[in-house]
Order: sequence, then structure tokens, then C-alpha cells
Amino acid sequence: MSLNTFGHLFRVTTWGESHGPAIGCTVDGCPPGVTLSEADLQPWLDRRKPGQNKYTTQRKEPDEVRILSGVFEGKTTGTPIQLMIENTDQRSKDYGEIAGAFRPGHADITYHQKYGIRDYRGGGRSSARETASRVAAGGVARAALAALVPGLKITGYMVQMGVKGIDRARFDAVEIEQNPFWVPDAVAAVEWADYLDALRLSHNSVGAVIEVVADGVPAGLGAPLYAKLDSDLAAAMMSINAVKGVEIGEGMASAALTGVENADEIRMGLDGPEFLSNHAGGILGGISTGQPVVCRFAVKPTSSILTPRQTVTQAGQETDLITKGRHDPCVGIRAVPVGEAMMACVLLDHLLLDRGQTGGVRGRIG
Amino acid sequence: MSLNTFGHLFRVTTWGESHGPAIGCTVDGCPPGVTLSEADLQPWLDRRKPGQNKYTTQRKEPDEVRILSGVFEGKTTGTPIQLMIENTDQRSKDYGEIAGAFRPGHADITYHQKYGIRDYRGGGRSSARETASRVAAGGVARAALAALVPGLKITGYMVQMGVKGIDRARFDAVEIEQNPFWVPDAVAAVEWADYLDALRLSHNSVGAVIEVVADGVPAGLGAPLYAKLDSDLAAAMMSINAVKGVEIGEGMASAALTGVENADEIRMGLDGPEFLSNHAGGILGGISTGQPVVCRFAVKPTSSILTPRQTVTQAGQETDLITKGRHDPCVGIRAVPVGEAMMACVLLDHLLLDRGQTGGVRGRIG
Amino acid sequence: MSLNTFGHLFRVTTWGESHGPAIGCTVDGCPPGVTLSEADLQPWLDRRKPGQNKYTTQRKEPDEVRILSGVFEGKTTGTPIQLMIENTDQRSKDYGEIAGAFRPGHADITYHQKYGIRDYRGGGRSSARETASRVAAGGVARAALAALVPGLKITGYMVQMGVKGIDRARFDAVEIEQNPFWVPDAVAAVEWADYLDALRLSHNSVGAVIEVVADGVPAGLGAPLYAKLDSDLAAAMMSINAVKGVEIGEGMASAALTGVENADEIRMGLDGPEFLSNHAGGILGGISTGQPVVCRFAVKPTSSILTPRQTVTQAGQETDLITKGRHDPCVGIRAVPVGEAMMACVLLDHLLLDRGQTGGVRGRIG
Amino acid sequence: MSLNTFGHLFRVTTWGESHGPAIGCTVDGCPPGVTLSEADLQPWLDRRKPGQNKYTTQRKEPDEVRILSGVFEGKTTGTPIQLMIENTDQRSKDYGEIAGAFRPGHADITYHQKYGIRDYRGGGRSSARETASRVAAGGVARAALAALVPGLKITGYMVQMGVKGIDRARFDAVEIEQNPFWVPDAVAAVEWADYLDALRLSHNSVGAVIEVVADGVPAGLGAPLYAKLDSDLAAAMMSINAVKGVEIGEGMASAALTGVENADEIRMGLDGPEFLSNHAGGILGGISTGQPVVCRFAVKPTSSILTPRQTVTQAGQETDLITKGRHDPCVGIRAVPVGEAMMACVLLDHLLLDRGQTGGVRGRIG
Repeated sequence: MSLNTFGHLFRVTTWGESHGPAIGCTVDGCPPGVTLSEADLQPWLDRRKPGQNKYTTQRKEPDEVRILSGVFEGKTTGTPIQLMIENTDQRSKDYGEIAGAFRPGHADITYHQKYGIRDYRGGGRSSARETASRVAAGGVARAALAALVPGLKITGYMVQMGVKGIDRARFDAVEIEQNPFWVPDAVAAVEWADYLDALRLSHNSVGAVIEVVADGVPAGLGAPLYAKLDSDLAAAMMSINAVKGVEIGEGMASAALTGVENADEIRMGLDGPEFLSNHAGGILGGISTGQPVVCRFAVKPTSSILTPRQTVTQAGQETDLITKGRHDPCVGIRAVPVGEAMMACVLLDHLLLDRGQTGGVRGRIG
Repeated sequence: MSLNTFGHLFRVTTWGESHGPAIGCTVDGCPPGVTLSEADLQPWLDRRKPGQNKYTTQRKEPDEVRILSGVFEGKTTGTPIQLMIENTDQRSKDYGEIAGAFRPGHADITYHQKYGIRDYRGGGRSSARETASRVAAGGVARAALAALVPGLKITGYMVQMGVKGIDRARFDAVEIEQNPFWVPDAVAAVEWADYLDALRLSHNSVGAVIEVVADGVPAGLGAPLYAKLDSDLAAAMMSINAVKGVEIGEGMASAALTGVENADEIRMGLDGPEFLSNHAGGILGGISTGQPVVCRFAVKPTSSILTPRQTVTQAGQETDLITKGRHDPCVGIRAVPVGEAMMACVLLDHLLLDRGQTGGVRGRIG
Repeated sequence: MSLNTFGHLFRVTTWGESHGPAIGCTVDGCPPGVTLSEADLQPWLDRRKPGQNKYTTQRKEPDEVRILSGVFEGKTTGTPIQLMIENTDQRSKDYGEIAGAFRPGHADITYHQKYGIRDYRGGGRSSARETASRVAAGGVARAALAALVPGLKITGYMVQMGVKGIDRARFDAVEIEQNPFWVPDAVAAVEWADYLDALRLSHNSVGAVIEVVADGVPAGLGAPLYAKLDSDLAAAMMSINAVKGVEIGEGMASAALTGVENADEIRMGLDGPEFLSNHAGGILGGISTGQPVVCRFAVKPTSSILTPRQTVTQAGQETDLITKGRHDPCVGIRAVPVGEAMMACVLLDHLLLDRGQTGGVRGRIG
Repeated sequence: MSLNTFGHLFRVTTWGESHGPAIGCTVDGCPPGVTLSEADLQPWLDRRKPGQNKYTTQRKEPDEVRILSGVFEGKTTGTPIQLMIENTDQRSKDYGEIAGAFRPGHADITYHQKYGIRDYRGGGRSSARETASRVAAGGVARAALAALVPGLKITGYMVQMGVKGIDRARFDAVEIEQNPFWVPDAVAAVEWADYLDALRLSHNSVGAVIEVVADGVPAGLGAPLYAKLDSDLAAAMMSINAVKGVEIGEGMASAALTGVENADEIRMGLDGPEFLSNHAGGILGGISTGQPVVCRFAVKPTSSILTPRQTVTQAGQETDLITKGRHDPCVGIRAVPVGEAMMACVLLDHLLLDRGQTGGVRGRIG
């Protein structure tokens, strides 16, 4: 990874600011011959698109992705795929306040300190808008994964919003696409709506936890020790705006477990070894076990809120700042498709890495 | 990062297995002219060294580090620094059982599946012994940081072991070096001793949470978006054996906060802006704020335990496995110096990266 | 370097095909605060632009570059700079012949063999058109270099076309911009015109040697051993389409020299050491000496010619192929600004790398 | 590539100085299951070993390589392979003169300028001794290539020494191992002996051109545009000490060819397309054609000679320097096995890269 690029063989370089003419990414290293068109990518972007309900920013962006290179006659050519999304709703407005003062909890101040200059319009490069590029790249990764590992399936959903968690006993995957929170629990979906409404009306915002699960990941993806599958997943998820924590399997809760409890015992199944539990989240020693890969990450509450917060201006004057504008009360909602996209990119990258080093040959058991 | 290398400019490549002749690492990109000798590195290694008390493995390793290159007349030359630690206590024993069967919760099975071959002696490459190389590399990073950022201080300690947490009201940094758990709470140190004794005697093990804090980190380190300081810290900590979760600042708990609570408000101090809180853990938008950088990670319980667990052999036969040998009942204890080392490496790397891109110039406030 | 990216800290990722909607590149790692606009880049692109005289392809491309990100209020922000050049003259024509048969000496066949698919329109990704992106990136590098190393000057020119070389006794830098060949020798310029006319009319093409010199490069840029300044220059120049050889200083001719002849003797000047000759081409041990950095590369003759050549079709049938279309009789001419651009990118990259590792401090002499 | 590492997937990081305790390298990314022992590597090192005849340095080094990691029960495990070669003949001597003055044509001055410190003993990091590590790594690459591409064969030899070239009409591969110059021309071998004797006795040295040919390279290795096979070969060869030029196929001579001459025409053979010539040196568009890959590089004359040359001291005083010690009169001789090793490393790296991206599938012809 280097500045604005992630991945080893399947490499994604994103570019663009919230209020520039466009954002996008270059996807390099994609296998050739994968069927791909804008129509394959657009549905993923539509899931992340702003303005779809009252719980996300009201910015109106079609988020139409264009493929500018790397695809010929409907198939990837193995050369870089340039994806571009034009910014159409950069509302003409007065940025005077944000231009001069730093939003508490926001990257305004650090961008200024590091670079001595920042594109303050809509958060510039630090805007969550950048994640549209990730979702587009994730769409390419999904297309390649579909060709290479037909059964692989990636599903993201919210498991916590603010102080409200889901009840895993009510877990229903079908529910995920039925509510604005991507929450797999119909009861929670109703409760959360009230909860978030209240927060929004009180000019506040709230954090969230997203879980992303990949089923059908073959055993053997990953690498010791600094390109471990979990190490790369951690970097990928932590690179998403506002993420403050990443967990694999039991995650932070594994600290409270004993070795007896945590051991995922193994039995022989019809097709090889089978685990009796998945505390490991599908990864042991940085390498996939063949079980579902389970990753969670926490998104902090949106820092742009209508409640005044103490801060300073670039000139060094103390002030109270209210952030107007069209901000998500829970930016974690739109992080769900982003987390899925990062999972797709990391898995494809490791599939290619593994194929490169080992040729995909697997050690036999039994 | 690539397989066994981490870092962008300050790059560490580790090598070696638990029971081979030696382990070590190549440290590339270190600034020249840094005062460095084995005596500067050994104290850090001694902190991680096994066999120091009954709570860590009884393997007897002097862990003497040798500098084989890159240092001339007591100073680094800017060329690669090779650090080697000989393995002296690879006890001659029968590995028959581990050689044939896979420890539940251990990387045995995934190494076999991926590579079709594994050095099963003492865990081979997946042994926690590899972390000695990280600590040695961290010692080099600390020496360079001491020269470049005199006030910078890195402190690691345990905040949770199993179900036992510390009481932050009793936090006492002096206490950290006074007990075998690196715990900054004298009362906890006593309780934890009993707790771990009981677990050990019942042939069990337990997980832990380690917190690493870096004070004196200048504002402006980090980079958007995939080489964010927090993204690289997450990758670095997750690359440590047995780590299953990583948090920055509030971490997973940030999900439960509101935007009003989470905003680290800013006032002007004598030397520039000052934050009234540090929910962010010293990082906003992937870039350091100048506040303490706070990182936590969870270590799962040691998988090698004396309690029988169900597993399979390489031949595909089901069996119950007891892992004999000299294993840490809480491998999290020895992860404290390792976490510190990773923090040191990541911070130095980002210091060099920042100096490369910006020349170290900072945007003014006031 | 990785597939379509080059550079360590100043990283350029190019994308796009000859006949797609656009080509471009992402420039990552540029220092912040550099004055930059499209007007700064366009002159460099205009020098490479096709159709400027009868010796280059008659394709009519305005090659207008747009900056889509990374620049705010006329200055670079330190975030990725996306440069896009639309393809406007993708002449609608029948590609039937090239689509089916492989041009001898061209990448048609290897792209097909590697990827099983190729965008044959105008050569697709292997078209010299890709070099426009390099020139644009080079323009960014020049702007940054101008800010960081004011006296640095990069000059490229042709020293050989086919069997015709320049007479170094007539070397006149002013002449370079006065003729269509970028040749610093007025007599040669006239002769070469006749020579190339004859070749063109006989449906043939010819190779060339380009020399690129950088004056004012500070001592100390480069790094042992695989990121040597000359190693990176060699990779950069060899990555240009049709380049088959790269030389530093005496280059291949150094083989014929003795150690006595080749020693660039050193005397003390007013500002430090001075070399009495520059056989080394400004680089010793991979690190710049402070003398002019001298690099040469050979460009093979254009493979797309009107003379029939034996080849095979994708279906495996033997055929004779004439390549119609608008092809440069000496593609080396337009390689001059490309070579300059690569020199600029490599030097800036090493300037940043050096600043990162050493802070730019230099060992004193005297 | 980054400082002291080269390669994308098959990555080699070398370390060590001429007169430190040892030199070596870490080889990361090697495929697992490759048969490997010290006995497989030693023969390659013996070919490069100093002191084998009067035309190479008389330093007596056994150059015994030890494998410290990454191999288990005679097979590679897929984890990093550490190779170490102890320095045994660091003759205790007075380095006073070289310590204080800079050898003209040597890296002494640039290392000092860049780092402000240098290990002057025997040239330190810039010593040709570092190439032993490359040869060891090349031995690993050869072992892996032998397993993956059985017919692949790499042969290096000298084609020019000083003003003396070989007569290609007398080319005899058997001759290469029969003379101290690795020259495939028995007549030249005799002439060169006299020529070099005379140069050596007159306290002089001389340059050389080495050609390395790889037969049996499958079509399809390489990648556009900055990880082209030729671009990586150019970087690899230019990274060898004292190399000043690199050529692929016709190399610099391609400038003098016409398109008609340079076209490698294609016919259908029994096993697919066959080229009627190989001006391209087996690479088109950065991708291998299936023909022999042909690379040449020029090595400048040894700068350490007994003839006095003008230079300056670190204190800034002018002086005449004679370099005593055990130096090769033609360092190009020992560069032959080094060039072969670099070719092996680059080819294996690209084989793994290609397998990663494409799965090794090839586009059909016929």
C-alpha cells in the first residue's frame, strides 16, 4: 500500500475530491477475460448512493460510473481499468465558515497541518464521497471473483448503531435489503428508525458497527506475516473514513476467552476437515481456513453536526462551529457497501497472490 | 507491505523459524548517522525474552541480537541493517504428535493447506518467536526516533487479561515495569497473578488486550487514504501473531458515541491548538493531530494447551490433541514489547514518508 | 514499480488505450503547495503532440490535458492529481486486418498470447499514445522540481537517426527547438530531413537514439542497490514503447575504456569538489555526483510500415501484412519529450526519497 | 523495487558489507515444495568466487552459503529463505588512504555525500562482494524455475573485453566454461589473456560486455507498462555494480535499423507461430515472445587501479591516489554469473506475476 493505492497484485488507486469535477480510480492487475460493463458496476454504486432515504445525506448524485479503459468488447483486457464518476451536485454555496475553521473530530485540521493547504469544499479528499470509488473497484473485484470462485458471496450489514445492537437470534439475511440500515433484524430496523430520527432532530449523529462476511472463500488465501489476510483486511477497513476499530472473528472479545473456549475444534467431513465453531473468523495464522471470513469495523459518529462545538480558526481564533450542509446522521449506514467492496478487493488480491506463489495447489488432508 | 516485509521507507523484512538455526530481520531505509549498537537493542529484546517468570514459556533463550551490517563505528550508514538472533534452545524432542495433527486454533492447518509443507517444529514460521525480530527492528526505529523527535515516548501495557480489566482510576505508569503483566494498576497485578495461576493449573490459557500509547508524536504524520497512519497501525498490529482486533482511540466503542460526545473540541493553547479530549486517539483523517496516538489490540488465548481438543491428523483421522511443551498461558503478556516495537516502526516510517513528501513543513494555525 | 505504476514516493499510474474515450494518469505523492495549472502542463504535451510536421503521425489530437483532482486554487494539495486527455481523433475505420493478424515487430502477438484478448484499435494499450500521460506526469514533476531545485534543467535531443549521427563539435542547444528532429546540430537537421523523407517514401521507418541530460541535479540522489538512480532511470526509459537499450554516461562504450581513461578525476573548486570529466554520466554507485546526469536510449524503428511483411493471423494462417494508417516514420522523434518526462519523474522521486531517508543533509568535503 | 529489495512477488533483499562479519539476502515469495539445499546453491557461488585465476581478485573467500530459514526437510516451505555467506578474508590492513580520499570513478564520494558516513573497508556496501548474495538468490530462482519450466536454460558469457570483441562465427557454447573469461570463442580466449595481462601489468583495468540468454522462456511473461519484462531486466542489470548500459535484442544498434530490417517475420511452425529472426531479443511490448530472451550489459573498468589518479580527500585537500589491494583487472569477468542470477530472478518473478494475474492461460493462435 502506498498513499492512495492499495493491494498487491489487484491494485486500486483512487483519486478525486468531493467538489472537484469528478472522482474515480484506476484498477490495475485485474485478470483478463472477465465480463464487465458499467451495468455490472452501477448496482453496487446505487446501494451506496446518497439521498436514498432521510437517513443519508440529501446530496443528489446519480453516481454514474464510466469505464474509460481496460475493457474491450465487454471483457477486461488485463490492462488498467479507469473508472470515473462525475460530481454533479457540488452545490454552489458559501464555504466561508468551514474554509476558515476546523470541524472538531474532522480531518480539516490535520490536512491543513500536514499540507499547509486543503480543498475545504465538502471535505475535499477526506470526504466520504471518495468511497464511491472503492465501491466501483469492489464491483470489478466481484466480477473477477465470480469468474474465479463461483460460490464466493460477500454480505455486509449493520450489527450496532449507537447504543442499539441487533439480536442475533432474530438474524435474517433477507431483511438486510428491506430496510434503510442494512440491518438483518426486522425489529431492530423499526427501533433504529425512531432512535436515529430523534438523534437527527436533536442535531446529533451516531456511530455504528458493520459486519462483513465472505462465504465460500477457499482455504489457503493469505501470507505470512505482513501480508496476512487479516492484516490486509484490517488495513483496508481502517482506511475507510471514520473507522476506528477492526475485528476478525471474535475480535476484541477474544481477549476474554480461554484457550479451551476459543479452540475451533476440527472433525472430518465429507469434503475434508470441518470446524465445529468459527471463533477465528475464518483466518488462522493470516491464512484462510475455508470457513466464512468474518470482519467487523466501527464507524465513529459523523463529525459534521448542527450542534455548536468549540474550535479554532486557521487564524488561531477560538469560535463555536455549527456545520450546516447535507450530512449523514449515521455515516455508518453507507459504509456497509464500502466494507463489502474492500472485502472483495482484498480477497481477489489474495487469490491472485496465492495463485502466483503456489499455483493454487493445496496441501491434502486425508 | 509484501509478504514478509512491512513499511514504506523504513522497511523491515523478517525471516526465520522457531527451531531453525536463527531468526532475524533486515532493516532497510534507516536514516544514516544514528548511534546504534547491540547494547541499544538488547534491553528491548530482554523485555520480550521468554522464561523470565512463570507466566511465560520456560524456553531458555538468551535472545542475543547481533548486528551483521549497516552500522559502522557505532553509527548507522543508511544501508541495510541485518539483525540476527540465534536459536539456542530448540529442545530436541519428539514432534510426532504436532507433526501429524493440527492444533485447533493454530496456524498448523492453514500452513499445511496453503503450502503443502510446514516446518512443524515449535510452530515454525508461525511461532511467536518471530516477534523477537520485530522487537529488534523496533529498537532500531526507537534509536532513529530518539535522534529525530527527541520527546517522543512509546509505552505499552496490558489493560485486560481474560475477563479482568484494569481500573483506569488507579492507572500508574510506574507500576508497568514492576509486575510480570506490564499492567499499570498495582491491585490488578495481584489479582491477575491468582487468576492466571488458576488458569494455567487447569491446563488452560487466556487472551488479553494491550494498549500502546505514543506521546510526543508531531502533527502531520500519515497520508490519505491507504497509507493512513491508523491504517498502517492496524495492519502492523494485526500482523502480530494471535491478534484478532485493533482499535484507535475510542475504537469499537466509538460506535456507541454521538457526534456531540465524540467531537474533540479545540482551544488555542500557548503553542497552538489544543484538544479538550482525545476520542480520536491522536489521529484524524489518517493523519496525526499532535495528541497521544492511542492504539489497542486484542490477543487471543494461546492455542497450545494441555486440555485435550478434538482435531484431525494430516492423514484425515480424527483425534484428541493435547499440546505439550513450554507454552505461554497468556501470550498477550509478551505481546506488550512487540506492540511497542510495531508502533515505533510505523511512526518512524511515517516520519520519513512525511519528510519525503512535504519536507516536514507544517501548515500554520494562528 | 508494479504493472502500470512507476516511482517510489512520486508515483505515476497511467491508464488508457489509443482508441478508448480517454487516456490519463494518476500522480500520487506530489509535494503540496506547488503552483500548477493546465497551462503549466499543456506546453509539454504540445511538444509531443502528433501531426505537427510530416515526420510524425498525421493523427489530429489536441491532446488537451485536464486536471481532475489534487489541485486547489492553483496549488497542489498533496493528494492524487488525476490528469485526463480525451481521445478525439479515433478515426472510424476498418481494423479488420490488424484485428486478425499480428504486425511483425509489434506487441500485437504478445498481448494476445498473454491475455487472450487485446484492444487492437490503434494498438490499444501498447500504442505510443500512452506516452502522452507520461509527458503530463512529467510536467507535474517539472513543476515540483522547479520549486524544490530551482537550477535544475532537463534537456532531451536526438543524437542519432538510423545510420546518421550528430557531430558533437557542432552541438548547439539552441538548435534543438528549431527543427522537427530535436537535433542539436543544424547540418544534421537538414541531412536527416532528406534521409527520413526517402525512407518514408519507400514505405520504411527507422530507429533513433535520444539523449537526455539533467543539469543542476544535487549530489546524493539515489540509493543502493536496487533503487539506484541509474537502475530506476534504466527501468523508466526501457518502459517507453519501442526502447531497446539504455545507457548512462559512457554507456556501452565504457566496456572499451581502461580504468585510467574512465576515472573522472577530482579537484577542489570554489564550491567543493569538481570532476575533470564525466564518463560516469553524473552517477557513481547509483548516487548522483552533482555533475550532469546523462542518459541515452535507443528507439527501434516503427513496426507499422507500408512494406509487406510475413506474419500469421490469429487463426493461424500465414499472410503478408501491410500496415496502413497514420504512423510515425521515426517514432524516436516524439520520444524526446517522453524521455525528458521520465527523467523529471525519476529525479523528483529520488529527491523525495532522499529527503525522506536523510533529511537532505549532505556529507561535507573540505 | 525499494532501496535494497528487488522483485514483485519473488523478492530479494540483500544486506551486508565487504568487510563486515557476513553478507546475505532474504528471498521472499519462493514457491513452496521446491527441492533446495546448500549443495544446490554452492556451485553457482563457486563460479563467481574470487581468487580462481590471476584475472580476478586474489581475496580468498570460500563463499560458503548457509540456508538459515525457509527450507524444511530439503524443500522450500514458502516462507522467507535467509541465505548467509560469512566474510572470512577481510584482511587486516591499513585503510588510511581510502578512508580519507575518494577513488575517482568509485562510489566512495557519493556514499559520503549522501550519508555523511561510509564503511570504507573494502568498499563497504558498494563492493562487488554484494553480488555474491545475488548469485545465491539466483540459485534459488533457478531451482524454482527448474521445477516450474523444465526446459528453461540461462547462459551468460562475455562478448567484449576492452576493445576486443568475439567473432560470432566462432561461437561455441562449450567453450564458455573452458576459459577464465566465460568467452564462447576459443581464439578470443587466448588473445584476451595476453591483452588483460598487459593491462594488469601496466596497472590498468578494462571494461566488458556480458550477454545473458534465456532459452525456453514461455510466451506471455511481462506486463505493461512499468513492469515490462525488459524494463525489469534493465533495472536488474543496471543495479549490478559498475554497469553503465543495458540492451535487449538489437539494443542500441536497433537505432540504425529500418522497420523492414527489424521486423521479426512470423510463420506457422508445428507448435505454433515461429519467428524468422530475433531482433527483438524475445520481448515485444514488454512481454516475452517465446523466443530466447537476449540481454547485454556493459561493465565499466575497475576504478581501483595502481596508476595514480587525481582526487581530493574528505578534508578537501587535493592528492594523487593509487589504490592498492586485491582488485579485479576486469570486474566484468565475475559479472557473468551475476548477470545470469539476475536473469533467473527476473524470469521467476514474472512467471509468478503472470500466473497470479492470468492463471497462466494463453491466447491461442491457430
